[in-house]
Amino acid sequence: MSLEAAPAVASGPSGSAASLGTVRVVGTGLLGTSVALGLTAAGGRVLLADSSPTALALARDLGAGQPDPGGVPCDLVVVAAPPDVTAAVVRAELAAHPQATVTDVSSVKAGILQQVADGGGDLARYVGGHPMAGRERSGPVNARGDLFLGRPWVVCGTDASDPARVDVVRRLALALGATPVTLSAQAHDEAMAVVSHVPQVAASLVAARLRVVDDESVALAGGGLRDVTRIAASDPLLWAQILSANAGPVLAQLQALRQDLDGVIAGLAAIHAEDGPQTAAGARAAVAAVVAQGNQGRERIPGKHGGTPTRYAVLTVVVPDAPGSLGRLFADIGAASVNVEELALEHAPGRAVGLVEVSVLPSVRDTLEQALAARGWHVVT
Amino acid sequence: MSLEAAPAVASGPSGSAASLGTVRVVGTGLLGTSVALGLTAAGGRVLLADSSPTALALARDLGAGQPDPGGVPCDLVVVAAPPDVTAAVVRAELAAHPQATVTDVSSVKAGILQQVADGGGDLARYVGGHPMAGRERSGPVNARGDLFLGRPWVVCGTDASDPARVDVVRRLALALGATPVTLSAQAHDEAMAVVSHVPQVAASLVAARLRVVDDESVALAGGGLRDVTRIAASDPLLWAQILSANAGPVLAQLQALRQDLDGVIAGLAAIHAEDGPQTAAGARAAVAAVVAQGNQGRERIPGKHGGTPTRYAVLTVVVPDAPGSLGRLFADIGAASVNVEELALEHAPGRAVGLVEVSVLPSVRDTLEQALAARGWHVVT
Repeated sequence: MSLEAAPAVASGPSGSAASLGTVRVVGTGLLGTSVALGLTAAGGRVLLADSSPTALALARDLGAGQPDPGGVPCDLVVVAAPPDVTAAVVRAELAAHPQATVTDVSSVKAGILQQVADGGGDLARYVGGHPMAGRERSGPVNARGDLFLGRPWVVCGTDASDPARVDVVRRLALALGATPVTLSAQAHDEAMAVVSHVPQVAASLVAARLRVVDDESVALAGGGLRDVTRIAASDPLLWAQILSANAGPVLAQLQALRQDLDGVIAGLAAIHAEDGPQTAAGARAAVAAVVAQGNQGRERIPGKHGGTPTRYAVLTVVVPDAPGSLGRLFADIGAASVNVEELALEHAPGRAVGLVEVSVLPSVRDTLEQALAARGWHVVT
Repeated sequence: MSLEAAPAVASGPSGSAASLGTVRVVGTGLLGTSVALGLTAAGGRVLLADSSPTALALARDLGAGQPDPGGVPCDLVVVAAPPDVTAAVVRAELAAHPQATVTDVSSVKAGILQQVADGGGDLARYVGGHPMAGRERSGPVNARGDLFLGRPWVVCGTDASDPARVDVVRRLALALGATPVTLSAQAHDEAMAVVSHVPQVAASLVAARLRVVDDESVALAGGGLRDVTRIAASDPLLWAQILSANAGPVLAQLQALRQDLDGVIAGLAAIHAEDGPQTAAGARAAVAAVVAQGNQGRERIPGKHGGTPTRYAVLTVVVPDAPGSLGRLFADIGAASVNVEELALEHAPGRAVGLVEVSVLPSVRDTLEQALAARGWHVVT
């Protein structure tokens, strides 16, 4: 590791795209093209590269930047290649651009860092990143310059990192409207296992059960099932790559989850063997314990804006299923000067009404209920 | 079983509360008090009973009806007791009111039916029911006459049921604004295992993992984790009762889920042992297969109004976190004559903006995007 390569970024206001200098984006899929579009729109200087001439031309035609003619000194290289080739591309870019800061956007970080190090890559200049956006869509045609707006962008510096290079990657995130979050690669991957990868596996496993039941049973699906299985619609091949790349941390979490699951199964088996819920009190306690542990974990998820979790009061409002209904509802909520913290829309089976669950601060709950009732809304609570 | 007891309901329009005659509600918790409030509000004649004089007085004070003075002939008895005493109460009510149809509202049905039959209860007059509402709240103070509005209400007749009695329970559901759904007790319980009980266990297991990670990792939680764990906030003791009462079907589904989970774990263990995602292609395929099965299951969940699943186009709109923002947004959506099919609100960490995901029919997607852009909204897609 060495610090001799001074950060070669142009001066300018922190967070501005121009201050990043010449940015080379390698890989013009969804994330790479979105990075390029965002930087170009913000006045940045962007050069594009992709192993596919067609993909490269598409990104250029979308206005993402100009194809890199070669021989141009770059200040920052953003590698947006598929996860399984990212480390090799990072090493090649470090070698080809000896002045540049090199980052990547793949969703698992420790393995890539290890492979870059093993290959002799300059860890002073490689600073991994993970913008947490866009995974449910794919392809350059879905690329948007504002894809990262308001999303966390994890920046994984190491002890070997040049601090100025870490700052460059943080400024890349800021230039794209994202919120930089500093974590080690290992901490990032372990966090992703818990907050993203295990939930994905669980959602898929629950949804997979739905294949075996008949239509009238599935028709009873309520908001709970819809919530739990929403992300089960994700791309299998992409997820096989992500889970494989983070196999260690995901494995550890899934094994812990299986141990808890075995506790539930053992409890229910004991209850079932006793042939009635009146028996097996200890088994029932074990089942209750898992739900209670879920309560504790759920309470740890931060409230909006990353602040302390807040318990909201929930009002359920009946709305006709017609254009303008939600508009009138939220106009009336706004007229009451009440801010909506969370909301969810549920449709009633077989009826032309929807139920909107509006979460508000408990202190304004009664005010809102009265205001909505006065304006003729049916509030169920 | 005998059919000698003719249905003793007053004549009247189907679905009207008055046509149900005198309705005795046993158990004045959340569900019983809500049934009583709804029937009373709809012009029904309701008598209340509860083993707790305090709970009974509270329900009366809420306007749910009058305490049953005893000796009054009843046409319909609604048992809304805790699950573990429901069967005994049903049997007692069948004996005490030999002309009445008796139903209940507990969320697991086959065990209660079996216990009623074992105790010699008149299965011609007992027709179990399950209104699918209200489980996330509890207590009589949360009771509302419109709790069941637009919700499915499963009606579990048997071969032994008097068809006119089944119709009475269907009309009870209709009088309360619910949608009656006919299923056998066994089919109901097996459906609930898949669409409600297993998702609850999975959500709790995923949320339980959050107890072990630090605050900055949990702060990376996105919409996916929030969705998967939303129902993990449920009441442990109630869920221990529900899961215990449906131990057989839940056990079978959890064992199948564990088998799928073991496949994922084995695949990841093989990948981890090979020390890199480039190897173990078969293991990666096994991991991808589970996600693909989840895709298939997720696609079976019906779209709104119980119709065929529809793939919606999703627009993501950036909204300032201030009163009135959502009102302006939905007013503008309404002005474009576009109907919102689903919506979700996500807050960006550390920023005073929210992202609203608006799902619309694909055919109106472009129209809406242009209309919103023209009115100054930032549409991310």
